[in-house]
Order: sequence, then C-alpha cells, then structure tokens
Amino acid sequence: MAANNNLQMFQFIKRDTRDFINIDPLQTAGLLTDAARDALIEWGDGYSVCDYCNGALDLVKKPPIQEFVYKALPEFLGTDTARVMNGARESKFAVMHSLASTAADKNNYVVMDAWAHYSSKVAAERAGLEIVQTEKPEKEIMPEDFLKAIETGIEKYGKKPLLTLLTYPDGSYGNLADVKKIAAISHEFDVPVLLNGAYAVGRMPVNAKEFGVDYIVGSGHKSMSACGPVGVLGVVGDEAAEQLFRKSAYNKVKEVELLGCTSRGAPIMTLMASFPEVVERTQPENWEKEVHLARGFIQKLEETGKFKLFGQNPHNHDLMFFEAAGFFNISEKAKRGRYFLYDELKDKKIHGIKPGLTKNFKMSTYGLGQEKLDFIADSFIDILKKYDEI
Amino acid sequence: MAANNNLQMFQFIKRDTRDFINIDPLQTAGLLTDAARDALIEWGDGYSVCDYCNGALDLVKKPPIQEFVYKALPEFLGTDTARVMNGARESKFAVMHSLASTAADKNNYVVMDAWAHYSSKVAAERAGLEIVQTEKPEKEIMPEDFLKAIETGIEKYGKKPLLTLLTYPDGSYGNLADVKKIAAISHEFDVPVLLNGAYAVGRMPVNAKEFGVDYIVGSGHKSMSACGPVGVLGVVGDEAAEQLFRKSAYNKVKEVELLGCTSRGAPIMTLMASFPEVVERTQPENWEKEVHLARGFIQKLEETGKFKLFGQNPHNHDLMFFEAAGFFNISEKAKRGRYFLYDELKDKKIHGIKPGLTKNFKMSTYGLGQEKLDFIADSFIDILKKYDEI
Ligand SMILES: Cc1ncc(COP(=O)(O)O)c(C=O)c1O
Ligand SMILES: Cc1ncc(COP(=O)(O)O)c(C=O)c1O
Repeated sequence: MAANNNLQMFQFIKRDTRDFINIDPLQTAGLLTDAARDALIEWGDGYSVCDYCNGALDLVKKPPIQEFVYKALPEFLGTDTARVMNGARESKFAVMHSLASTAADKNNYVVMDAWAHYSSKVAAERAGLEIVQTEKPEKEIMPEDFLKAIETGIEKYGKKPLLTLLTYPDGSYGNLADVKKIAAISHEFDVPVLLNGAYAVGRMPVNAKEFGVDYIVGSGHKSMSACGPVGVLGVVGDEAAEQLFRKSAYNKVKEVELLGCTSRGAPIMTLMASFPEVVERTQPENWEKEVHLARGFIQKLEETGKFKLFGQNPHNHDLMFFEAAGFFNISEKAKRGRYFLYDELKDKKIHGIKPGLTKNFKMSTYGLGQEKLDFIADSFIDILKKYDEI
Repeated sequence: MAANNNLQMFQFIKRDTRDFINIDPLQTAGLLTDAARDALIEWGDGYSVCDYCNGALDLVKKPPIQEFVYKALPEFLGTDTARVMNGARESKFAVMHSLASTAADKNNYVVMDAWAHYSSKVAAERAGLEIVQTEKPEKEIMPEDFLKAIETGIEKYGKKPLLTLLTYPDGSYGNLADVKKIAAISHEFDVPVLLNGAYAVGRMPVNAKEFGVDYIVGSGHKSMSACGPVGVLGVVGDEAAEQLFRKSAYNKVKEVELLGCTSRGAPIMTLMASFPEVVERTQPENWEKEVHLARGFIQKLEETGKFKLFGQNPHNHDLMFFEAAGFFNISEKAKRGRYFLYDELKDKKIHGIKPGLTKNFKMSTYGLGQEKLDFIADSFIDILKKYDEI
C-alpha cells in the first residue's frame, strides 16, 4: 500500500459528543474518572503493562495487576476467583466454551432470560450451544419463567442445560429479576448460573455468593469507568474455576480460555485506576441515591402524561425505557419526521437517543446528578411544548 | 466490598520505564505516535466509538471505522477482507475455531513452525486442535521442514491438517522464512495458510496475496503503534471470509467469530490514528533503513568478539537474539550474579532485557535510530570493559 494523503482522515478525529450530556445507557457509566484518564496517558503505549511480565498478565506485580486480580476483584465481585477479560461477551463465551468443550456429549444448550443481550446469544452460538429462552413476559421475568424454560429444555433435549444465564438487569428495560430465586431453581437441577451483570457490576452493589450464582461477568467500558475493551469475570467455587481457568498443556502459566493473556494494554490500567471510585459509588447508600434520582426523573416525565415507563415501576435502576406518545405524534408532522427528536436534542447538546427513535427509547440517568437530569427532563418538556403537544 | 484506603494503590501508578530506551521486542513498535496519543484522550471513555453505532463496530461510519476496515486495512494487508480484532492471538483463535467447528469430522490438527509463539499453540488448544510442529532446525526453518511436518501429520492422523501456520518472523530469532514456498507447499495439499505477522505487520512491507497466504494476522499493540488490546486479521478469498465472518442466526449484522464487536474502545482509534505513519514506515525504502540499522548494530557487537547472533546473518529484521559469552562470564563473578546486567542497564536507562538473563537474550532495534543504537551498543561494551571482559 502506498503512503497516501487520504489516510490523514484516520489521524485526528474529534469526538463531537465529548462535551454533550450523554444519556446512552452504553455511555453513562463508562466515562473515565480523572485517575483513569491519567492512567491512559501513562500506560498508552502498546503492551506497556508487560514491561515486568511474570509469565502471564494476571501475574504481573508491577503494576500491581496480580494484587488487583487475585485480591481486590474477587472481593468486589463476591467470588473466590476472578480474571480481567476483554469484555463481558468474551467472559460469557469463555464460560460457555469451557463448559461445552468439556461436556460429556454434544448437542448442548443454555437457558437464558427472554431479554438476553445479543452478545449472550452470539457467545452461545459461537460455543456451539443451542438456546432456550424464557417466554417473553408481560412485565418482568419471574423465577417460574426459568423453571418452565429449564423444563422445556429438558423435554426437548432429553437432558439438563449446561448453564442458566440471567441478564441483571436486562439491557432494555433495566428490570432486576429475583436472582436469588432464579439461581436456586437452577441449582435444583444442578445447573450452574451465570449472571450477566454488564449493567450491574460497577454501578450497583453485587455479590455473587449472596446472589447464589456461580459466574458473574461485568463490562469495564460499560459500567466500570474503563476504556474498552475490558471486562471482568468472577467464579464461585474451586472446581468451576479450575475447569474454566485450566492451564495450557504447552505452557504451565497460560490459561487456555484466556489465550494466555487478555486485556494487555492501558484498558486494564484504567479499570484499576477507576476501581477505588467504582467501589465507592457501588456502596449501597450511593446506589440508593442513584435510584432515587432515576425515580425522580421518571416521575417528572410521567407527570406530563406523555411518557410511560416500561418495566418495573417504582424503578430500581438507572437504565429505563419509555413509550413517548407525544414525541411520536410530533414525528408524524415534523419536517424532519422521526429525526426531529435527535435534532432537537442535539441543539440542546444531549446525545444518546438513537436517531429516528421517538415512540420508544431507552436511556440512562447514571451519574448525571440532579441538575443535569432536570435539564434533560425540562428539555423533553420544552420540545413537547414547542410542538404544541402539551 | 467496603470502600477502602488500600484501594488507592490502584489509582495512580507511574510507568517507571516511560523515559527509558526500551529494547524489549514487545515494546519497540508499539510506542504510540503523537496522533495516537491524542486519539487516546479524545476517545478514552468506555464505549466512545459506539456513539453512532450502525449495528456493529466495523460498520461505524463516524468515526470512519467502516472506511478503515473495509478499504484501508485490506489494501494494507493485501487481502480481500479484513477485520480489527482484540489482538493477534484472538485472530488466530477465530480462524482455527471457525475451521474446527465447521470441519466435517473431529480430531483435527494444525501444522506450525518449530518456533510458533505460545499464543498460536494455546489458540489451537482452545479450538480443540492438535499440533504438529516442524522439527527444530539448526538455523532456520526451510520449506522442506513444512513438507515433512505435513507428511508426518497425514501419517499420524490419516488426513491433512486444517491449517498451516507460519510465524513471520518467529518471535525468538527474527528469522524470515521463505513464506512463498511454504505457502505453495501447503496449497499442494489443499491446506490454507495463516501467516502470524505479529512482528511483521506494521513494521515491514507485507502483502498476503503476494505471499500466497490465505490469512494474515497482526498485532496492533506490538507492531502498529496502537494501545492494546487490538489486532488485525486479513483474509484472501471470498469463501474463506464468508465462513470466518459468518453472521449470527440471532442477529443479521453480528459476526459469530467476532462475538458481534471486538475492539470497542479507544484502542481501535489509536490503531487508526497511527495508521498513516505505519503505512509510511512500512514502505520498502523505510524498512530497508531499519534493517540497515539493525545490521550495523549487530556488526558493532560482533566486532567485540563477545556477542554471537543466532539465526539469519546478515539479519533481515529488527528482532535479534544474541549469545553473550562476556555477560555470562561476568554473571558468574558479579555481586548481584545474573542480575548484574539488568542493574547496569537500568543505570543507563535502558530497559527490555529480562532480569536475570545474561548469556542469551533477545532485543529489538526498531525505530530507535542511529544515535540510540550507538548508545546501546556502547553501553554493552562499557559494561564488558567495566568488568574486564574486554
Ligand atoms: C446486557 C448487556 N450484556 C452484555 C453486553 C456486552 O458487553 P461487552 O461490550 O463488555 O461485551 C452489553 C453491551 O451492550 C449489554 O447491554
Ligand atoms: C510471534 C508472536 N505472535 C503473537 C503474539 C501475540 O500477539 P497479541 O498480543 O496481539 O495476541 C506475540 C506476542 O508476543 C508474538 O510474539
């Protein structure tokens, strides 16, 4: 390839949403802390964390990755063992692939909630596992739905599933299912449980042992103020960990499912740098404040009569899904049609509702605080007023 | 987990090698360019690149990831198709896993060069593939060694391998095998060839089609001045790409082997930001300058009579492996024993030879330039003089 002036287009690209209020659920809890931003600069170069490699990423003592992975992280997750991974999906795949490749026979399956994230499904698919999902509920997923799904699976496949997966909260409505009961049901069938905590770990208190789950995964770039791609994986019980983190036959420190080393660069350093603040913000009293702010925001919108919250109400999470009849009405008459909302919000420097959405959208209030939340709610209301919807 | 003052240890950690001359082969070509450093700050937050997601990472138009992945990258690699991955190992695993899971029967294997990197072996192991390696050669791996290994495999398994893998250059000696001949031999058996270019892509000119290989893999954090984890994967031929990048049954834009999206964060932006410089530095005339500098450095050391280069000589790469009899002699009498060399180099602010190594070590001269290379060679010589070895 010839050196080419055209390539300059890749060289410096501004992120034009950087000074916006971002309400995209993907973004609110992924914002770097100041400490993480410093870490990013300090550790930006290539394989920087490998300067003092002890044979594998999680054994590195300087920087103190080993201390983080072997002590701080399992304590935080409420697990016996933990690893830093490339993300939540890579963690789910590692668990499923490990279970699938050590299963006694083939044609296995996983039971998942009806709202499982696409990445859970693709992880199963990649691991060669079929999927049985709970039925789509009216409002929220109940433990009985899992019981039914497991029974359906046993009937269809003539054997129990390899794994039960619960999305906690689900990524559409921000509903928190009864994880303890669901885990107990799964364990009655002697089936391990994986909690997909992509929207929980780093935002709210979680403890795998208290929940009674066997595996917990989190997403660093989504909910732990880390630079992507990075995630966390915790395991309860020695046997499960030994199987999942089995060592290579070719190299006695490298773990097969981790391909030896995972997040070998600055992202793991940002995860560590933000960790003290993440631990702080997930203290029960701090999470309660977030839930309180989320509820206040919901209430303010619902009072207009033009917004309806889907899912659990009173709501227990910052991720929320609205039906917005007023915005929909406007989209039918506005010049830019269904893109009007995106444009109006852009004028107000609010980003995060996908262009073209009006009637239904999800958003997150995480970490924004009272003032910005008031500004967002007022902006929504102003837009409705501008188009004579209220 | 209680918020705890102890956690402050993770918050700001200095990289004490940052102002050192780093000759660790892992580090020399992973140093960020200025443009990449700017990109890191601009795109540091969590999932920043997903603000304008079009359904999958490689389809994102803003920033121009799609343009990069679908146009610039395949042209650079000399392939028909390319993707950005989490690293070289993840790319190798994706290829092997895809081939293994769509193979007609089980018990398959891969043929690899004797010096294959552990991550190639672990990737095969994770994909459930056995490995046949070429015999360890006296000096360098010859095409006949691959012929023999394939024949050995066919004899042992009663069928041809799923894949032939060549490490180019190998990660120990920096030898460049005759890739064209090796690819041709593999193709005579109708076996596709993967080129592990972790130390080639981004350092030197490569072109998969000219080489005649089917897959090429590169490491962003190792050789493309990108922040880890990130890598590149190129594929020649539509059929191979269709199989490898097959879409999910659950989601029509998400690719199964990529788990939907790979390097979803700032690392991909650093890869793109450095790309113009990487294209420039891999132009044949610029790579020739690097090789010239490497040879000059080797010559200066060999002239002392105390260093012997392993592998191809004249050498064709910046990665080199020495036997240093003089350093070894010193280690037998120095107070700090075999750690003396590490200490002496630290005093001179040179990092990258593993603590404890003296007799044999590898290093890289990439991107250091004449002045620093002279300083390193002179430092080696000074140390020998200090301990009366010359
Ligand atoms: C519920 C849920 N699970 C998992 C993921 C994937 O997270 P990661 O990018 O860390 O793989 C997401 C990402 O959007 C999600 O919303
Ligand atoms: C020859 C070789 N191949 C592959 C790799 C792995 O690269 P990555 O970290 O991108 O997976 C390395 C890393 O040291 C290597 O030296």
